[in-house]
Amino acid sequence: MSLLLGQIVDALGGTLEGGAREVEISRIAPLESAGPGDLSFLSNPRYQQQLAASKAACVIVAPALRDAAVARGACIVADNPYVYFARATQLWKQRHAPAMPVGVHPSAVVDPSAEVDPTATIGPLCVVERGACIGAGTVLKSRVTVGENCQVGARCILHAGVVIGADGFGFAPESGAWVKIEQLGAVRIGDDVEIGANTCIDRGALEDTVIEEGVKLDNLIQIGHNVRVGRHAAMAGCVGVAGSATIGAHCTVGGGAIVLGHLALADNVHISAATVVTRSLTQPGLYTGMFPIDENAKWEKNAATLKQLHGLRERIKALEQALKAAQENGTR
Amino acid sequence: MSLLLGQIVDALGGTLEGGAREVEISRIAPLESAGPGDLSFLSNPRYQQQLAASKAACVIVAPALRDAAVARGACIVADNPYVYFARATQLWKQRHAPAMPVGVHPSAVVDPSAEVDPTATIGPLCVVERGACIGAGTVLKSRVTVGENCQVGARCILHAGVVIGADGFGFAPESGAWVKIEQLGAVRIGDDVEIGANTCIDRGALEDTVIEEGVKLDNLIQIGHNVRVGRHAAMAGCVGVAGSATIGAHCTVGGGAIVLGHLALADNVHISAATVVTRSLTQPGLYTGMFPIDENAKWEKNAATLKQLHGLRERIKALEQALKAAQENGTR
Amino acid sequence: MSLLLGQIVDALGGTLEGGAREVEISRIAPLESAGPGDLSFLSNPRYQQQLAASKAACVIVAPALRDAAVARGACIVADNPYVYFARATQLWKQRHAPAMPVGVHPSAVVDPSAEVDPTATIGPLCVVERGACIGAGTVLKSRVTVGENCQVGARCILHAGVVIGADGFGFAPESGAWVKIEQLGAVRIGDDVEIGANTCIDRGALEDTVIEEGVKLDNLIQIGHNVRVGRHAAMAGCVGVAGSATIGAHCTVGGGAIVLGHLALADNVHISAATVVTRSLTQPGLYTGMFPIDENAKWEKNAATLKQLHGLRERIKALEQALKAAQENGTR
Repeated sequence: MSLLLGQIVDALGGTLEGGAREVEISRIAPLESAGPGDLSFLSNPRYQQQLAASKAACVIVAPALRDAAVARGACIVADNPYVYFARATQLWKQRHAPAMPVGVHPSAVVDPSAEVDPTATIGPLCVVERGACIGAGTVLKSRVTVGENCQVGARCILHAGVVIGADGFGFAPESGAWVKIEQLGAVRIGDDVEIGANTCIDRGALEDTVIEEGVKLDNLIQIGHNVRVGRHAAMAGCVGVAGSATIGAHCTVGGGAIVLGHLALADNVHISAATVVTRSLTQPGLYTGMFPIDENAKWEKNAATLKQLHGLRERIKALEQALKAAQENGTR
Repeated sequence: MSLLLGQIVDALGGTLEGGAREVEISRIAPLESAGPGDLSFLSNPRYQQQLAASKAACVIVAPALRDAAVARGACIVADNPYVYFARATQLWKQRHAPAMPVGVHPSAVVDPSAEVDPTATIGPLCVVERGACIGAGTVLKSRVTVGENCQVGARCILHAGVVIGADGFGFAPESGAWVKIEQLGAVRIGDDVEIGANTCIDRGALEDTVIEEGVKLDNLIQIGHNVRVGRHAAMAGCVGVAGSATIGAHCTVGGGAIVLGHLALADNVHISAATVVTRSLTQPGLYTGMFPIDENAKWEKNAATLKQLHGLRERIKALEQALKAAQENGTR
Repeated sequence: MSLLLGQIVDALGGTLEGGAREVEISRIAPLESAGPGDLSFLSNPRYQQQLAASKAACVIVAPALRDAAVARGACIVADNPYVYFARATQLWKQRHAPAMPVGVHPSAVVDPSAEVDPTATIGPLCVVERGACIGAGTVLKSRVTVGENCQVGARCILHAGVVIGADGFGFAPESGAWVKIEQLGAVRIGDDVEIGANTCIDRGALEDTVIEEGVKLDNLIQIGHNVRVGRHAAMAGCVGVAGSATIGAHCTVGGGAIVLGHLALADNVHISAATVVTRSLTQPGLYTGMFPIDENAKWEKNAATLKQLHGLRERIKALEQALKAAQENGTR
């Protein structure tokens, strides 16, 4: 498993400086642990001091760091070193790890009425139900379910255990029990979407749940019925989005956050990890709500006091008034 | 895909007014987006002004709204429009989407000692282990596991990826390592229970984990060992219920909430989303505990201050005493 | 299904007192519900008053409780009654529940290049990908995926739906879209690790994600890429650990907690349920951060006030200064 520096720049562009095209790269590695056979990268100028100390065979750097990098040894100068690094991992994988074979694995269960593009890959033990549609170049890893009439676009990756198109959670209460609302919509997933292991996207109640192009979802995420996730939004693991919420384009949602139902997040809204979104957010920006971690004993005192917080505010108000009265008395 | 209004009221009851039995319905749709071929419903009187504007072919309404609805066009008058709508979705599905075929899919792995009712449906790539029992009319969608000796009642729906009867999480600490406590109980699930995709219900340690009749669980929920969930309780996605907790009948638990172990929730307790239940709740009611979301910069200030909250209370007390002393001095 | 008391002490040690070796045990049961055919245990001296009232055939007790236990009837005296109970459940299971047959279930999909120890068990509908390695005595229950080149040690248990080695969540932003960073690392899992249903452990980006020996993970946990979990750590259900975090040996993480990326937790750090770890923790101890649950109406008042908390602190400061000024005026 190796690539020459010359092969890398021939494939990905950028300028090789301070080293020979024939240098053999045996691994891609982080700057701090890279050894003499490794390609590394420096994307954050804050870590510039790590550059001189790195033993990497070659470091991908931005133009501004070209001189410092050449002083150390070989480098590839690229406008966006982090993106260049990403493409290098793609090149590496393409050269060294044979892709899953295109087509339907014999152990998968694909309904005859489903439309699977001939360039798609349906991995072992997947289920593609009646009327579902899988686009060109899309890969379903093992044990993925795509439910009835759901559509998955082109060049998507669905990791193991993903469930697309389970019934949304809808029930009408009657005499203390629940009457099922059949979920008559489906799920529509755009192109270039990636969905992490064991993540679930429910079908819509009457209309479709929609995941727009370029969305990236991590593992163990729950997307409720009728949700719309805007293009190029990204969500980290364990997020829950309740029914009929709308997430704008380019939004990011941190791990474990919860978005309540029927809310709308504008484009470019960013939600911190473990935050509960309880109202629509119409302005771009970063929003947060999490209880700060502390030593348990300190937390207990503060949490107990928190339950009296409204009362404390009233006491502060009373103090302010009393003090004002006292001062007025004093000046009279 | 269509139904006549006459077919709908023949099947579901209610009174058709202001329109003909022969009107053809091609879809069920929300009031605001319904078109001239659609059946819709108005369950919340607050949205009454949407009624006049709706283009729906027919609207399901409560008796009190009969006159307003007839003034607009066809309507079905029903005592509980939301429940009527739910039953209409069921009728729609029954007429237009052929059910999964009853019986065991050839790709499923069912132990010969398991008892599967002949009217049950075991979908593709499901696993039903030794001694498990699946009741009449119950449907296991794709890739469901029902573990050894676990029982699932009649008319249940288990969505893709559900795991019933994995081992509960039980270990005894010994010399810094963990000794496994074998989980000798099973899981018993009542009739008419629905369980969402990738939800897990662990088997009991010594006795059984119990899910009573009519319970509805959304996706990606974790139910620990020895838990008992009372009849007709409902939980939204990403909830975690720790071992030996007891959830009363008709309780609801919002998405992402956590119930700690060994607690008891009375009947009709309702827990808001993302709330952590840290004590037993003996009275019905709505309980909440979540950090309010805010712009990140504001949150940072408030969160930092929160860690001094107990100290602030002490300062308020001191102020009150000082002021009182000053006032007493002043009156002397 | 029964065992004689004599068989139990022969297999597990301990001293049988106050009862005959021939007494037949038909079940292991909690102290409060144990009947006359049951073996029970008392691990917490706080519950000593339950001992006299118990109807159990035999109770496992610590040496200090030997006399109280003999006064009631048969007991097994063991240094650590809880560990003895754990081993008794193991004996019970071994005698009464035939283990899954060793070897690869015919419905599993195992790549020819994977190395599966002949003493390992690969359950129904599992997937073991190219180059993966499964150690001696390890059991993959049903529907487990072990991805390319991932290694699982000896005597591990992976419950249904587990996904080892899905791609870590890594993307480089470019012009408003995301460029995939191929995940070139794998997952290495030590010996004696147990992993709960539908839990996911992602492969590393460049190096491996590592789970050290003896770690116990509950259900529906997300472990991000490049994480290292130290030996004998334990995590309850629904925990999320973001990428590149390091969890020390013997740590415990409560249900629903979130550990942010790139943090380090020292050995013997304990995190309460639902707590968000936002900074590295270098000292052993118990850490907590959760909003206290309250009746909804009270919560609303306190939560609203919380958003003014920083302002309240400023008002307290102002009061303190004003009062001080007033006092100084008064003394002048």
